Amino acid sequence: MPEKIPCISLLTDFGLQDNFVGVMKAVILKINPRVRIIDLCHQVRPQDILEAAFLLKGSFRFFPRGTVHLVVVDPGVGSKRKSILVKTKDFYFIAPDNGVLSLALADEPIQKIIEITNEKYFLKPLSPTFHGRDIFAPVAGYLSLGKSMDAFGKRLNAIRKLDLAMPRRMKDKLIGEVIYIDRFGNLITNIHKDQFRDFVANSHFKICIAGKELRKLSRSYQEVGVNKPLAIFSSFGNLEISVREANARKFLSVDKGMPIQIVKT
Amino acid sequence: MPEKIPCISLLTDFGLQDNFVGVMKAVILKINPRVRIIDLCHQVRPQDILEAAFLLKGSFRFFPRGTVHLVVVDPGVGSKRKSILVKTKDFYFIAPDNGVLSLALADEPIQKIIEITNEKYFLKPLSPTFHGRDIFAPVAGYLSLGKSMDAFGKRLNAIRKLDLAMPRRMKDKLIGEVIYIDRFGNLITNIHKDQFRDFVANSHFKICIAGKELRKLSRSYQEVGVNKPLAIFSSFGNLEISVREANARKFLSVDKGMPIQIVKT
Amino acid sequence: MPEKIPCISLLTDFGLQDNFVGVMKAVILKINPRVRIIDLCHQVRPQDILEAAFLLKGSFRFFPRGTVHLVVVDPGVGSKRKSILVKTKDFYFIAPDNGVLSLALADEPIQKIIEITNEKYFLKPLSPTFHGRDIFAPVAGYLSLGKSMDAFGKRLNAIRKLDLAMPRRMKDKLIGEVIYIDRFGNLITNIHKDQFRDFVANSHFKICIAGKELRKLSRSYQEVGVNKPLAIFSSFGNLEISVREANARKFLSVDKGMPIQIVKT
Repeated sequence: MPEKIPCISLLTDFGLQDNFVGVMKAVILKINPRVRIIDLCHQVRPQDILEAAFLLKGSFRFFPRGTVHLVVVDPGVGSKRKSILVKTKDFYFIAPDNGVLSLALADEPIQKIIEITNEKYFLKPLSPTFHGRDIFAPVAGYLSLGKSMDAFGKRLNAIRKLDLAMPRRMKDKLIGEVIYIDRFGNLITNIHKDQFRDFVANSHFKICIAGKELRKLSRSYQEVGVNKPLAIFSSFGNLEISVREANARKFLSVDKGMPIQIVKT
Repeated sequence: MPEKIPCISLLTDFGLQDNFVGVMKAVILKINPRVRIIDLCHQVRPQDILEAAFLLKGSFRFFPRGTVHLVVVDPGVGSKRKSILVKTKDFYFIAPDNGVLSLALADEPIQKIIEITNEKYFLKPLSPTFHGRDIFAPVAGYLSLGKSMDAFGKRLNAIRKLDLAMPRRMKDKLIGEVIYIDRFGNLITNIHKDQFRDFVANSHFKICIAGKELRKLSRSYQEVGVNKPLAIFSSFGNLEISVREANARKFLSVDKGMPIQIVKT
Repeated sequence: MPEKIPCISLLTDFGLQDNFVGVMKAVILKINPRVRIIDLCHQVRPQDILEAAFLLKGSFRFFPRGTVHLVVVDPGVGSKRKSILVKTKDFYFIAPDNGVLSLALADEPIQKIIEITNEKYFLKPLSPTFHGRDIFAPVAGYLSLGKSMDAFGKRLNAIRKLDLAMPRRMKDKLIGEVIYIDRFGNLITNIHKDQFRDFVANSHFKICIAGKELRKLSRSYQEVGVNKPLAIFSSFGNLEISVREANARKFLSVDKGMPIQIVKT
């Protein structure tokens, strides 16, 4: 049995050029010096709730059971938007209630939602512009110490959901779009491999994007020649368009939002 | 009572593209495997002592009591500049004696200053270009193990101070400048909220920067329309100029050093 | 005696803008919650095996004894390239067998090599594009728990080696090249100080690069005037060309691969 050590993951759009992330960690460790803090990602595009939601959805299950996932992408900081704490069977989630948790929690049954309101656990004076430091970090710290969820506020019945661009399915076409582009320039679409397989079944197909047509799925980047495009299921389960040993975003001049079509042939 | 675990914070201009920060952490953990290391920030503009001093001043108090704040922004590495270790009531500070600690220590009474000279605690051979690895990291490691300050060298009476641009106060005007710009493009000025309030008292005022006039302080970014500028106290206490859901630096074409005036009306 | 805490270092080309590194850490901590994870560097140029090999060579010895060095720069992911686990007297190394370990292991006698094949320790389903998460991270985690090397696969006799550009030595000339450029723009060459000293011995010399001639080695950046070039041994032991308080890469318009000559005079 591994020793029980609490874990907090951090997902923000704070970047690493300022002191925001460092100060949040300081606040957490001052409350719970034993907690492990894992940086999930801090380079979410500023205020891009959808991007954070997508990254969280692909990542949260890999963490140790009991991990507190703390997400601060918060364009509404200081407004009336709520702060929430959510429990599922295996994880806790803390975030502004702006939809950033909704993609992850679409797959993971919610057991309990608390609106965070108990100022006893906030830093004072409370800044109107940095709830990451003054509300979310200390609440995560106290929760990781074993504090009961009910200590932080009253129950809510539902969280806000994102209007995610879902693929549209027609008779012979499945139309999706590029929703994320990684460091290597790989184009991640909103078409999950289960949807793809369900649509294509045993038919022949072509994948059309940016004027290119691909007629097969590759199992690895090496199945095509250098600088050739390929379609593959990404390591997080979505249909991905890549160019071997090159940057598909630049190579195909594609940005987020670009449509992709799967056509039965 | 939380278990007592020593903490070291790191603030450098090393960036994250090289192995400098990773190697400093390795050196620290080799000496004290139990210490917690928190990255405060590594993206200080190369050799910008003032920027590091400003970040440290806004951050150091959020850390656990007893934290060793290790600051390596060191354009004079290898020259005659001293290396210092400073104790205050709640913290230790280790840095080159180039003024980088002086803004933080303006608010925090110094109890003791040691010039770090005892080569027993340095890595050998001592590189003339990377004292972060060979002097500062091991000294922080040994200090976090409980080694007495006096082991590292002889007492000093004073540290070097920065000539910080202080706001100039005239009869009806307070003139400051932009001293920091964060990831979101928010413009942080050298006017602290206490100075602002003391100057303005109960008068009406206007805030003038880059041809814009603002006649109120906002409590949150949502008080103005999207793409409208606002003045707010930053989460670290300074007067900040922002543009709602936009990048004020780009929107107002402002860079560090831009003057800002508070005028009584 | 410091308490024995296992350490894993991470060296990748994943960058920090995605969730790759965070998810690898999650996988490791889920297996071994006590392990210390140190980011050596994640900003290796995408798929630049040589750059990673160079950073590892300069860094691995600074880590605590027993550290598992996990390196994922893996352009061949999903192909037939092997995954390897190597033991030396003081360290473990885990990486794709593409030469990325070969510079470090040129100096460090290999005691044992295992080809990682035992799927019992892999995450399922195994992604063809992210072995960092599904193979390397869990193997590092189990190894740090004390699992025997032999559990992971069968012995190999040799690892792949890189064709590193070695300096060419002629009668009166030593010709090397710039192989790494750090954040500050310092130009790191493939000429090690031992080679330099052995070649130059007691002769006079000039160092020629980008049309500049330098006739001495400096001990610190301050030995020349501001904006003047200098030659110095880098903190990792290689001949380095810098410009005081400036960026030598920009100042001298030099990129990786630029030749440098040491000429006896």
